[in-house]
Amino acid sequence: MADQNARVQADDLKRFTQAVFEKAGFTPEGAEHQADVLVWANLRGVDSHGVQRISWYLELLDKGHMKPRPNIRIEKETPAVLLIDADYSPGPVVTIPAVRKVIEKARKVGIGWAVIRNTLHQGAMGYYALMAAKEGMAGIAIVCNPPNMAPYGARAVGLHNSPIAICVPGQRHRPLMLDMATSVAAGGKLDVAKDKGIPIPLGWALDKDGKPTTDPNLAEMLLPAGGGKGSGLAMLFECLTSLFVGNPLLTPVYQGKPNAKVHRQNSVVAAVDIATFTDLEQYKANADGIVDGIKALPPAEGFTEVMVPGEPEERVYTERVVQGIPLPEGTILKLKSASKRFGIPLPAGL
Amino acid sequence: MADQNARVQADDLKRFTQAVFEKAGFTPEGAEHQADVLVWANLRGVDSHGVQRISWYLELLDKGHMKPRPNIRIEKETPAVLLIDADYSPGPVVTIPAVRKVIEKARKVGIGWAVIRNTLHQGAMGYYALMAAKEGMAGIAIVCNPPNMAPYGARAVGLHNSPIAICVPGQRHRPLMLDMATSVAAGGKLDVAKDKGIPIPLGWALDKDGKPTTDPNLAEMLLPAGGGKGSGLAMLFECLTSLFVGNPLLTPVYQGKPNAKVHRQNSVVAAVDIATFTDLEQYKANADGIVDGIKALPPAEGFTEVMVPGEPEERVYTERVVQGIPLPEGTILKLKSASKRFGIPLPAGL
Repeated sequence: MADQNARVQADDLKRFTQAVFEKAGFTPEGAEHQADVLVWANLRGVDSHGVQRISWYLELLDKGHMKPRPNIRIEKETPAVLLIDADYSPGPVVTIPAVRKVIEKARKVGIGWAVIRNTLHQGAMGYYALMAAKEGMAGIAIVCNPPNMAPYGARAVGLHNSPIAICVPGQRHRPLMLDMATSVAAGGKLDVAKDKGIPIPLGWALDKDGKPTTDPNLAEMLLPAGGGKGSGLAMLFECLTSLFVGNPLLTPVYQGKPNAKVHRQNSVVAAVDIATFTDLEQYKANADGIVDGIKALPPAEGFTEVMVPGEPEERVYTERVVQGIPLPEGTILKLKSASKRFGIPLPAGL
Repeated sequence: MADQNARVQADDLKRFTQAVFEKAGFTPEGAEHQADVLVWANLRGVDSHGVQRISWYLELLDKGHMKPRPNIRIEKETPAVLLIDADYSPGPVVTIPAVRKVIEKARKVGIGWAVIRNTLHQGAMGYYALMAAKEGMAGIAIVCNPPNMAPYGARAVGLHNSPIAICVPGQRHRPLMLDMATSVAAGGKLDVAKDKGIPIPLGWALDKDGKPTTDPNLAEMLLPAGGGKGSGLAMLFECLTSLFVGNPLLTPVYQGKPNAKVHRQNSVVAAVDIATFTDLEQYKANADGIVDGIKALPPAEGFTEVMVPGEPEERVYTERVVQGIPLPEGTILKLKSASKRFGIPLPAGL
């Protein structure tokens, strides 16, 4: 029997996940993209964005909210920008090719900037920013959903805790990666607290009446990081994504429109080519210098070392690539259900 | 005698400021740019970035750190991007023309993105983002200086509290403007506390030993907003600005290089053209919808209303355009000193 500590090798998990999505109607390439983004998140320890999402994605497909073979169209294009209608595509299926396109544009004119309308869940945004960094570019990715966060000073939902990911290449070091939600705590952390039956810190969330709560089961809305700062970023991210594609996700909720809260996303993915501006190897060495410099600083009280953004995830990655990905019982049940439904053997170890 | 409540009309203050900088060697156009950025900050109540800076700028000119007539050069250019060497230009003198150029590029290819090397203090970054919004675009501006903030988990200076400004146009409403530092509190707020002789909240700053302090006079480094989030943004902003122009501002300080802490900046200014992607009037109406929706939410405990980013400053602006700009005694002394030095009459009211 699989226990809480059952570990699965990334390749096996990816093969399984890809097979599931192929059976669910994705093209082989689309299924590969979807599986890669999910398993990458698991490898980095961001399990909230990993294969535990499979069951939700299947639900979205069953309901017809997510189209396995969407009619993705480029609606606008210049040498530097793109507007892509995703037609309710699975996130990675539209976004990986979109990032490749902005990388091509950045190679030619220094920057590529794509806005994407009506994609479904893109997964861990860092994946897309990292794609650009691997090509010698700065990658930027932003995404907005219907609201789940109280704006600064409000006790009702009015913003999405829209994340931003920024990634640039290092030389000796791994790429420098920031992948942050604009809320104090990402939604996934509340789920973990629920699963473990432990309270959440005050300041993470409000209950349905807009009162502060430490009970993750009563948490109805997230709170913005840094008060007006996280709130302001989230508001402007909606303006940079949803409003640019003519598909507001916040105002329909304010106006109480039907289906306004149904999951869908609008997004920006961008790449800025380093070699267009400066020497790439020198850039990477300078990026290393920042990592080295910050890590050499004396730790604050309560810290044993200073870590740079992405470093904790990178450590998990290094370990899980070798030791495999540990899957909790709840996730294993979801995989078993998909295995049964599509007649696909579970990955080795389960 | 001028008292603490002396008020000066914006036009008078701008004329005076422009005359000072012309006498200090700026071109008439450069002096006009400099004066406009300073007085705009005063109008919005961001007095830390207003005319009280005149004396510091004159000091930078006297020391030869700031060049009144710099040799500004475009080093790289594509249809979408620019790399500008500012040659130690006063911030607005290089940045206002740079924003005009990115707006031109955005009009043609959807986006314009400029990185600027070695400018001096750019002032309130919102000014530049607003320039783009007035042209029907999203404006983005980011700037980095030598470090003044402790990275998350460290008790020593290692990052700059680099601000970002994002601005988009509204229709009925003023442009939506976020202009935020990546620290909990901007440096100017500590100066205000010093002047008033009041303590600062715990969590704003550390003393020279990296211990939390509530004494603004002992505050030696700022703390990042949202812990790792503000810290991560600041780190990646250095990568998007300084590293792209081959002019790191953090690593020379880590390495103890001479003059590493001398004030200078690297910056990104960018514009994304709305009409390239979608209908501009509809965009503006949708932006209004966000403002209306957020403001209609019930206020949280301790708040009497929900405000959107930039709203408090806009209210001050509305009042000061009519009533004039109140200048504290310390600022008036600085203006008097410049008046005497250059033989320029003080603005009416002082």
